[in-house]
Amino acid sequence: MERYAGFKYFAVASPAPFVAHVEINRPTKLNAFKEAMWLELRQVFEKLSVDPDVRAVVLSGAGDRAFTAGLDVQEASQNGLLAPEAGVDGARKAAKLRRHIAEFQECISSVEKCEKPVIAVLHGISIGLAIDISCCADVRIASKETRFAVKEVDIGLAADIGTLARLPKVVGSFSWVKEVCLTARDFSAAEALQVGFVSQVHESKTAALDAGLKMASFIASKSPVAVQGTKEVLNHSRDHSVDDNLRYVGIWNAAALQTTDVPAALMSGMQKRKPTFEKL
Amino acid sequence: MERYAGFKYFAVASPAPFVAHVEINRPTKLNAFKEAMWLELRQVFEKLSVDPDVRAVVLSGAGDRAFTAGLDVQEASQNGLLAPEAGVDGARKAAKLRRHIAEFQECISSVEKCEKPVIAVLHGISIGLAIDISCCADVRIASKETRFAVKEVDIGLAADIGTLARLPKVVGSFSWVKEVCLTARDFSAAEALQVGFVSQVHESKTAALDAGLKMASFIASKSPVAVQGTKEVLNHSRDHSVDDNLRYVGIWNAAALQTTDVPAALMSGMQKRKPTFEKL
Amino acid sequence: MERYAGFKYFAVASPAPFVAHVEINRPTKLNAFKEAMWLELRQVFEKLSVDPDVRAVVLSGAGDRAFTAGLDVQEASQNGLLAPEAGVDGARKAAKLRRHIAEFQECISSVEKCEKPVIAVLHGISIGLAIDISCCADVRIASKETRFAVKEVDIGLAADIGTLARLPKVVGSFSWVKEVCLTARDFSAAEALQVGFVSQVHESKTAALDAGLKMASFIASKSPVAVQGTKEVLNHSRDHSVDDNLRYVGIWNAAALQTTDVPAALMSGMQKRKPTFEKL
Amino acid sequence: MERYAGFKYFAVASPAPFVAHVEINRPTKLNAFKEAMWLELRQVFEKLSVDPDVRAVVLSGAGDRAFTAGLDVQEASQNGLLAPEAGVDGARKAAKLRRHIAEFQECISSVEKCEKPVIAVLHGISIGLAIDISCCADVRIASKETRFAVKEVDIGLAADIGTLARLPKVVGSFSWVKEVCLTARDFSAAEALQVGFVSQVHESKTAALDAGLKMASFIASKSPVAVQGTKEVLNHSRDHSVDDNLRYVGIWNAAALQTTDVPAALMSGMQKRKPTFEKL
Amino acid sequence: MERYAGFKYFAVASPAPFVAHVEINRPTKLNAFKEAMWLELRQVFEKLSVDPDVRAVVLSGAGDRAFTAGLDVQEASQNGLLAPEAGVDGARKAAKLRRHIAEFQECISSVEKCEKPVIAVLHGISIGLAIDISCCADVRIASKETRFAVKEVDIGLAADIGTLARLPKVVGSFSWVKEVCLTARDFSAAEALQVGFVSQVHESKTAALDAGLKMASFIASKSPVAVQGTKEVLNHSRDHSVDDNLRYVGIWNAAALQTTDVPAALMSGMQKRKPTFEKL
Amino acid sequence: MERYAGFKYFAVASPAPFVAHVEINRPTKLNAFKEAMWLELRQVFEKLSVDPDVRAVVLSGAGDRAFTAGLDVQEASQNGLLAPEAGVDGARKAAKLRRHIAEFQECISSVEKCEKPVIAVLHGISIGLAIDISCCADVRIASKETRFAVKEVDIGLAADIGTLARLPKVVGSFSWVKEVCLTARDFSAAEALQVGFVSQVHESKTAALDAGLKMASFIASKSPVAVQGTKEVLNHSRDHSVDDNLRYVGIWNAAALQTTDVPAALMSGMQKRKPTFEKL
Repeated sequence: MERYAGFKYFAVASPAPFVAHVEINRPTKLNAFKEAMWLELRQVFEKLSVDPDVRAVVLSGAGDRAFTAGLDVQEASQNGLLAPEAGVDGARKAAKLRRHIAEFQECISSVEKCEKPVIAVLHGISIGLAIDISCCADVRIASKETRFAVKEVDIGLAADIGTLARLPKVVGSFSWVKEVCLTARDFSAAEALQVGFVSQVHESKTAALDAGLKMASFIASKSPVAVQGTKEVLNHSRDHSVDDNLRYVGIWNAAALQTTDVPAALMSGMQKRKPTFEKL
Repeated sequence: MERYAGFKYFAVASPAPFVAHVEINRPTKLNAFKEAMWLELRQVFEKLSVDPDVRAVVLSGAGDRAFTAGLDVQEASQNGLLAPEAGVDGARKAAKLRRHIAEFQECISSVEKCEKPVIAVLHGISIGLAIDISCCADVRIASKETRFAVKEVDIGLAADIGTLARLPKVVGSFSWVKEVCLTARDFSAAEALQVGFVSQVHESKTAALDAGLKMASFIASKSPVAVQGTKEVLNHSRDHSVDDNLRYVGIWNAAALQTTDVPAALMSGMQKRKPTFEKL
Repeated sequence: MERYAGFKYFAVASPAPFVAHVEINRPTKLNAFKEAMWLELRQVFEKLSVDPDVRAVVLSGAGDRAFTAGLDVQEASQNGLLAPEAGVDGARKAAKLRRHIAEFQECISSVEKCEKPVIAVLHGISIGLAIDISCCADVRIASKETRFAVKEVDIGLAADIGTLARLPKVVGSFSWVKEVCLTARDFSAAEALQVGFVSQVHESKTAALDAGLKMASFIASKSPVAVQGTKEVLNHSRDHSVDDNLRYVGIWNAAALQTTDVPAALMSGMQKRKPTFEKL
Repeated sequence: MERYAGFKYFAVASPAPFVAHVEINRPTKLNAFKEAMWLELRQVFEKLSVDPDVRAVVLSGAGDRAFTAGLDVQEASQNGLLAPEAGVDGARKAAKLRRHIAEFQECISSVEKCEKPVIAVLHGISIGLAIDISCCADVRIASKETRFAVKEVDIGLAADIGTLARLPKVVGSFSWVKEVCLTARDFSAAEALQVGFVSQVHESKTAALDAGLKMASFIASKSPVAVQGTKEVLNHSRDHSVDDNLRYVGIWNAAALQTTDVPAALMSGMQKRKPTFEKL
Repeated sequence: MERYAGFKYFAVASPAPFVAHVEINRPTKLNAFKEAMWLELRQVFEKLSVDPDVRAVVLSGAGDRAFTAGLDVQEASQNGLLAPEAGVDGARKAAKLRRHIAEFQECISSVEKCEKPVIAVLHGISIGLAIDISCCADVRIASKETRFAVKEVDIGLAADIGTLARLPKVVGSFSWVKEVCLTARDFSAAEALQVGFVSQVHESKTAALDAGLKMASFIASKSPVAVQGTKEVLNHSRDHSVDDNLRYVGIWNAAALQTTDVPAALMSGMQKRKPTFEKL
Repeated sequence: MERYAGFKYFAVASPAPFVAHVEINRPTKLNAFKEAMWLELRQVFEKLSVDPDVRAVVLSGAGDRAFTAGLDVQEASQNGLLAPEAGVDGARKAAKLRRHIAEFQECISSVEKCEKPVIAVLHGISIGLAIDISCCADVRIASKETRFAVKEVDIGLAADIGTLARLPKVVGSFSWVKEVCLTARDFSAAEALQVGFVSQVHESKTAALDAGLKMASFIASKSPVAVQGTKEVLNHSRDHSVDDNLRYVGIWNAAALQTTDVPAALMSGMQKRKPTFEKL
């Protein structure tokens, strides 16, 4: 997609109508993230979020080896995240770290805040930041050979860019969540499917990507008013009580029901043809 | 049950002591719901909630074809829910829709608010409202051939009667929840069991219903003080922090432990006989 | 461990560096709990929580027959919990029960509040309080023959020491949670694994205990700053929104990143040797 | 107003366009409440809530002596609220009381849930239930001679119909709130004004009522879309975080801004004339 | 009171039936707190909380000069609170500080958790910890000459023992709260009354103490079931939504209404005599 | 301040060390806001938030006539906020409005998110957006002649940029908050002081500004670690329970106490001289 051509670390294509395919594009480094990349990630997803030509997004890694190997540790040791500035006291170091972490978190959260559904297609090495990022996606699909790990404790860290906040809400078994977070052990695609971290596993990266793009196209064929409302309300539900959620969806739909998509969908349902929906 | 004879769209029987069996009773229309039905649903469950002769409820659909096919779209297009009144501005339409949705939600929530455990036996077509309603039930059991779908996006809607509020709290895999809500695709009983949406699958509607009634009878044989307290506290737990829940169950049980059911249960346990419990 | 020698109902050993193994030690009574035991449980875990020589804890039951058979009902009938004092009015009984329950809850919650990860190895009879306690542990592992049950409704009670507060947050399927809580039926280790209540099942108590101790040793070899931060933040996540969790982990790590464990871990990672971490 | 003529304990008049004046109408008993009255109160306010001819409500007591003297204790001793049924155990008594209290609370909360602003004009004896009810109102105005008290502890009760839930959110000084709730002492209109419980005090009931009606007329002359949205959002704000409130008002106004009231108000503002707004 | 004789830093007397008067008793040091004192404070209030002979507590400082001058900074510089251990990294220092602060907070919170109402009588120097502690009390009364300050920023600290958590919920004007917390400026009793931090100001310490003891006696003459329920529910209200509070008070009163205090109060009300209530 | 010279609608000066004075600078239009202005406001405050040379900020309006007259209604009617795009359905209009409102809210919230304390000096016309903005400030000071109003209902709107979210948490009297929001009536500086909306009133704009700058200088002379921690924790307190706040301030201070500001403050306190603090 031409209007996404300026990005250095992300390749954005439109393989089908209303579908964007975003690739993390630093394959020579196993798509490991340095600071410039997460800043760019936010730019990409803020743009997709309001792009009327995009109704569903697929996110994968460039190359065969990795979705992402996570943080580029070498770079992080230099930019201050893993090597807090010397010569200032503990409180001042903490203030810098807080700001740094907060900005990093906001960049990754842009995937969750994107108004359009995001399907993460995980493959190859998918560790550390791969879990943070994919927890922000709506649907997770994996290829069979994916190697997952919540890797942070192995470098002396409690994961702070979102994994610990979101993984317990994305997977039902808290025993499993704690096990993989406290041990940093690998887990396979099969295990990820069994506990519900991913909802589909496919034979290869290609097959997983095909499935992801197909799902994206399918979603893109639905009413964008309905789809984007569903995403928003489900995310709201995760963090609020049932009573609050019922109230929220009620006022949301008070506007959303004033759409021409409902009659369009009903009519085409009766006529057994595909409906067309206005841009959103 | 004679005192439930006046209902038009719901058949209520008592197949076993302290057990009520409620059937959604509009089989010629696949048990699809129109407004009069959800208003009646509330009446039924508000009555069951305080009926001392009822200790457990089974909810299923009349006929072999469907638990329910969901909203009667044709009727909804006429009563204003799907066809907001013309000639008024967007804010005024929204006010009407909000009231309409809120009342609809309250009717469905009456299944959750019923003080007695409700076991939903799902079978045949179980789409749209079937998910909203069964998410309000305590236990979900399905027959093998059940065809489930969160159907709302297919008619241009974000589901607003409870599915989006409750499904993420009823099933552990958020990836799966988003997948079925964003695509409106069908899912089978086997898949529903695998992700934990239902906790049992049986060979046929008859077998599933038998299992549901047996479970209801079993629950009805226990102390109603213990059973109804357990339901209430589990629902409270879903929406509050662990600390709040511990505090809540403590004050709840401060009254509930003053029951004769505890000595009755303990005594009959020692004497290897069935205890009898006072009405509640 | 000598400094834990004074406990009457708990045996504490250190089978590996930085690992504590706690056994519930009343095997002649199936490790059933009386009041003195839960008071002692709190003392044990408050001590482990701040013991710099302990980095991971395994909790199991002494003997082959039971993790624990739960509350010692006979004793509870005498100490007032199940037999509220006569001769005072309902409000005054309630006040005593509230205090009693609150103290009991705090004792069991000490397992959750222990700053070090706790791995519960479940085996044999694991009912009632076994569920309350193991829900406070971080990871649950079971031997194949374990017999689980949320037993409280069978003695006329809604479980109030933590099961109803924590089980819905530990297991993804709310239908299953309600089924086992409302019926008090037994469930097997295989079922517990399938729904995610435990994350591993082993052939025998010995094998499960070995696996638990091995996991504890593995966790104990990691940075204690990283491990203890991960436990704390995951427990915070369970009870707060994603936004609150991101903010919390950010300020937590603003201090935690000022550790020598990060450079130690990175350096030893590059040098392919085991890092050593300072006490915490 | 003719369509409110059927009520026994409430007189409803329309002293000005779009203004309803509701009087608690049992002056011979100091407007004390019995069960039939709070059930009727709910009916009145549910009707006002959706009545397009009503845009603001004034609530006062009939007669000169009292807004209300609170609960009709004699009746309450008979209907079970203050005299729980004998012959059943403590848990069963508790269940009845819970239901009874919950229904009573819902009736009083109908004043808060009324979509139109409610101005309580307090005068004379305004104790017990007078506080519960007026805390549900949006604005509180008093006459100089009003005698207030949170009276419940004097009859052995912690107030449970709303005072303890709402008073700390209605008045800023928690020390004062605790003082009047724990001592049940009287407080004057002047004191009520000083702490902010009421926002205006007038010389007499007549003057207070005039001020209330004038304020109601003034509010009724504004855009009902704006006024009713303001009420809803302020009540939401009381119980949620700032972040949640900002999100909520954003989606609320996404529909509300699609009103013709905005251009109508702007236009009439420029033309220095009174705008007219469509019914809502 | 003899059974409180063993305390070193607190003098406990019973100047009236069911009333305890606690004095912070280190007048030679302006009642400044060292660690042993806050540990003892907790012991005192945990004992008062369940002492059936106590129904209301007054808390003041011994001597004429101060309620308390706050933290004994000299001691704090030695015990680690203000002088974190050297020779360990920032993360390990943080862990120690967290534990230290948490224990300190729990000690102070024991005043809030005391089941009986606590009236703080403030006088003389009332700075730093004086605000933390008195925010935990239910009612605050001051003598005219009291000099208040939230002093922490003056020693380089954000107050962490409760002032910042509770002051915004105790006083309505957030502008004033921020002003006194950010500037550490003194404020007078008159100003404290005007903003609602205290609810009464008296001419002298003696007069304030008399008023406090009189209020305590008055409260102690009421039903302890009603009074203690009122305290508990008001504290719950501060931290929860109105809906949650209504639900909580409903289940609380389901037990509390089963008291003989209600008929005792009603009967003595009719007979114009003082009721007597059973111990609690 | 030179590095703030590029702003068009805001003048930023540094009248004292570590103090920034921001003026809303469109006096010919009564400082009314158009979209470019709120976007710029965010830039200004995001810069101040991390500027180590700024420790306190004063915000006022340029010229004598107004702090701000609020939204530039004429411009808003053109940019879409008050005149939603024609030709699309209600749902699509709502989506645009939601985004527009959210961005507007974020801009205004930047005043609250600024890590340094902000003192709003209100004067002249201070209506509509003046309330939204000043509610984000930490301290509010007014000149005697200030004319305040929550003006939104007068143009058919429920205020959505923050007033309804924050005013109930900034002022204790909910009756007063509702009165001024529902009627849009003016209120004076004296009334604002009485209810606690502002914490100081001065004779003139000049005097108020002097007081604001003096307070800012005073705050800027304190430890920035202490001051900025106090602001952050107080804002957290407003939106969380006491328990959550205690936990939060504990982990915050675990890093913040590792500052050299504490010994610096203590030492200079003993030596009766002004301490110097490192930049933050």
